[in-house]
Amino acid sequence: MLVASPPKLLVLGFALIILVGAELLTLPIASAAGHSTRWIDALFTATSATCVTGLVVVDTGTYYSTFGQLVILSLIQIGGLGFMTMATLFAVFLKRRISLKERLVLQEALNQSSIEGIVRLVRKVLFYTLCIEAAGAVSFTLRFMFDMSPGRALYYGIFHAVSFFNNAGFDIMGHFRSFTMYVGDPVMNLTAALLIFLGGIGFVVLADLVEYRTKRKLSLHSKVALSMSGLLIAAGAVIIFIFEYTNSLTMGPLSFGEKVLAAFFQSVSPRTAGVNTVDLASLRQATQFILIVLMFIGASPGSTGGGIKTTTFAALIGAVNTMIRGKEDVVMFNYRLAKERVYKALTVTLFALALVMVATMVLSTTEDHQFLMILFEVTSAFGTVGLTMGLTPELTLVGKIIIILMMFIGRLGPLTLSYAIAPKPGRVLYRNAEGKIIIG
Amino acid sequence: MLVASPPKLLVLGFALIILVGAELLTLPIASAAGHSTRWIDALFTATSATCVTGLVVVDTGTYYSTFGQLVILSLIQIGGLGFMTMATLFAVFLKRRISLKERLVLQEALNQSSIEGIVRLVRKVLFYTLCIEAAGAVSFTLRFMFDMSPGRALYYGIFHAVSFFNNAGFDIMGHFRSFTMYVGDPVMNLTAALLIFLGGIGFVVLADLVEYRTKRKLSLHSKVALSMSGLLIAAGAVIIFIFEYTNSLTMGPLSFGEKVLAAFFQSVSPRTAGVNTVDLASLRQATQFILIVLMFIGASPGSTGGGIKTTTFAALIGAVNTMIRGKEDVVMFNYRLAKERVYKALTVTLFALALVMVATMVLSTTEDHQFLMILFEVTSAFGTVGLTMGLTPELTLVGKIIIILMMFIGRLGPLTLSYAIAPKPGRVLYRNAEGKIIIG
Ligand SMILES: [K+]
Ligand SMILES: [K+]
Repeated sequence: MLVASPPKLLVLGFALIILVGAELLTLPIASAAGHSTRWIDALFTATSATCVTGLVVVDTGTYYSTFGQLVILSLIQIGGLGFMTMATLFAVFLKRRISLKERLVLQEALNQSSIEGIVRLVRKVLFYTLCIEAAGAVSFTLRFMFDMSPGRALYYGIFHAVSFFNNAGFDIMGHFRSFTMYVGDPVMNLTAALLIFLGGIGFVVLADLVEYRTKRKLSLHSKVALSMSGLLIAAGAVIIFIFEYTNSLTMGPLSFGEKVLAAFFQSVSPRTAGVNTVDLASLRQATQFILIVLMFIGASPGSTGGGIKTTTFAALIGAVNTMIRGKEDVVMFNYRLAKERVYKALTVTLFALALVMVATMVLSTTEDHQFLMILFEVTSAFGTVGLTMGLTPELTLVGKIIIILMMFIGRLGPLTLSYAIAPKPGRVLYRNAEGKIIIG
Repeated sequence: MLVASPPKLLVLGFALIILVGAELLTLPIASAAGHSTRWIDALFTATSATCVTGLVVVDTGTYYSTFGQLVILSLIQIGGLGFMTMATLFAVFLKRRISLKERLVLQEALNQSSIEGIVRLVRKVLFYTLCIEAAGAVSFTLRFMFDMSPGRALYYGIFHAVSFFNNAGFDIMGHFRSFTMYVGDPVMNLTAALLIFLGGIGFVVLADLVEYRTKRKLSLHSKVALSMSGLLIAAGAVIIFIFEYTNSLTMGPLSFGEKVLAAFFQSVSPRTAGVNTVDLASLRQATQFILIVLMFIGASPGSTGGGIKTTTFAALIGAVNTMIRGKEDVVMFNYRLAKERVYKALTVTLFALALVMVATMVLSTTEDHQFLMILFEVTSAFGTVGLTMGLTPELTLVGKIIIILMMFIGRLGPLTLSYAIAPKPGRVLYRNAEGKIIIG
């Protein structure tokens, strides 16, 4: 009973937070104009904030009052931190069904091994989060002070540092512009990219990195997460750079250095921050498709980001590579992955793909927009990314409901599923005889 | 050496047939106008015919002379029959790396068990093919005689019976119309659908069905292939019927009965015949996407059709279902599938998906058309389906080359891969230690 409850608690807890948030956002004082917001829009915003997605039906910067923005910021912090903590806890302590050996590996990585360690772990997550967010806020504030009053710069600095570290994708720059005005600004780009990266790499890796100075050794998980993240950012940046080099609507007018910066930033953002510095609707189709793929892959496990996760993707590549070369084992950094783990990666991906496809198909009938735009929106919602080609504010009522569901499922589904994935012991009363079918 | 050669022989044999066919098609007597065809277009047509795809850069009915059409028909028959025979042989006799038990299951299904059985098997495949094609040709000819002279009706009857049984998708109705003029004709629709179904269900299932009268028992493979094919056709037809009911450009003007027939036929065709009775470019986006999914899944193993195969798709559904319900085994008809088999289904699908995605991305940069149209074309080429939203005749040179490659890989890749998939015994000198990463 107690063993089964954590995922249920997580789902119910998130639902409760979202509903409270939605109620607060419907209050007249939450909007800049002082009128009460439609419930479906408030629900959309609250879901988007709590699930750290960043898709918005109204512009956060101009539509909401400071009170409304603070409600959103609170939802982001609770949602992001809560999820990261729960995901880490699940992986380390609560997932009793995984093998002892497996837990030991994780516990070793985190240097925690007992129930009282939960408190220590949560404290550690909180401490890391606050340190990184504070550093980000200082950097942002100093840069914002060139453009606005110190008080406002501080508010903007804190808001965006929290939003970016939690990979929430919310901004208060106004008029759905995201960070497009800072496309060539190194301070903004690097601060934002670092916040996104640290928020999306996962707490297990963060802890591993901090302890690297004393241990001089990274866990296999950290190696895979770090190298796959690096690979995705580099490959994405190169492709975006090439595809958009001559696109006069996006990167064409920029200087060479700005182009590099813009390509790099647009490649970091799908992991799964949802901030953009160029207009996504003006990108070439091929670039938009690349972004969809990057958003689907997303961030690393136990982080504030979403998607199927970098480690899952690494396992997929390993599986295909192993198959093509006619080998038996998926090998990474001289370790072999257990078949069940690769199998899990494949089924998780397939489940995610099916979900995205069904939602895209339904939206294709309810929304009068191009297929790619709809696929982009659905993947963004599922991966809790928050990038959009402009569909969000134009969504129909049914469209809004489906995107709300996708954000919620995209955030909580994989974790709850991952918790429930191991077969319940003691329930297998008999096994069927093995049958054969021809595959492929 | 001899063990490794069948897939190589298959690939080289197909390449040789395609090149000879392309040379013949460039001859002036092959075109109706009597001039020589551009080599890239001849290569495209020869590849499309030999790989029984049916995508065409020029209209088969009006552009090619009778000689040219007969070259195409020969390529279809050699390609379709050759592939089906080889695929069946691979599954039954040549795949020495599969377990003895597995081979016994297949041999039981085919009632063949020795090397001299190869000859018997090939003869059986030939016999079945000719019987079904002859019956189809008779039915078609009788119907065509209402519209044209008996001689022409016979020629049209034979051409389309051979093309449809081989799931080749070629037609000689002229002007890229496919069978749109027969959208409401029950004889044409049912004959075509039956030819497509029998060609696409696979020889193993055909043999199993023929022997059902004496054995009163179907193999698990046949049960899965038949039920999944039925399910896909039914589900596809219902969705297409609903989505297109009010579409004035496709099924809107038809009577209720014609609508049912049209929805049914458009749902059968992606398995992977490539004949259409309504204009595919005018379908709603959601319907086009459904067709893409159906084309990707395709036909059953060891058949004239392509795609990842119905049994593979059944294994995928089983895997996701098993995962969601927290069970251990994928169970079908009270038999459990071996983990390795499900694993193979997952990797084959992933490989196919990656291939389609990369090709789509490349074509997105070379072709100036909508994303969905390009995805449709690439999936159609990979699944050797032959349906198109109209992109094929407008392909650029690079586009043509990529689609040619996709047709070839889509036809031969999965089989060759499937042959090579088992790890080579005796090569595993050491195994790496197991490492752990967090998935999802
Ligand atoms: K986000
Ligand atoms: K075809």
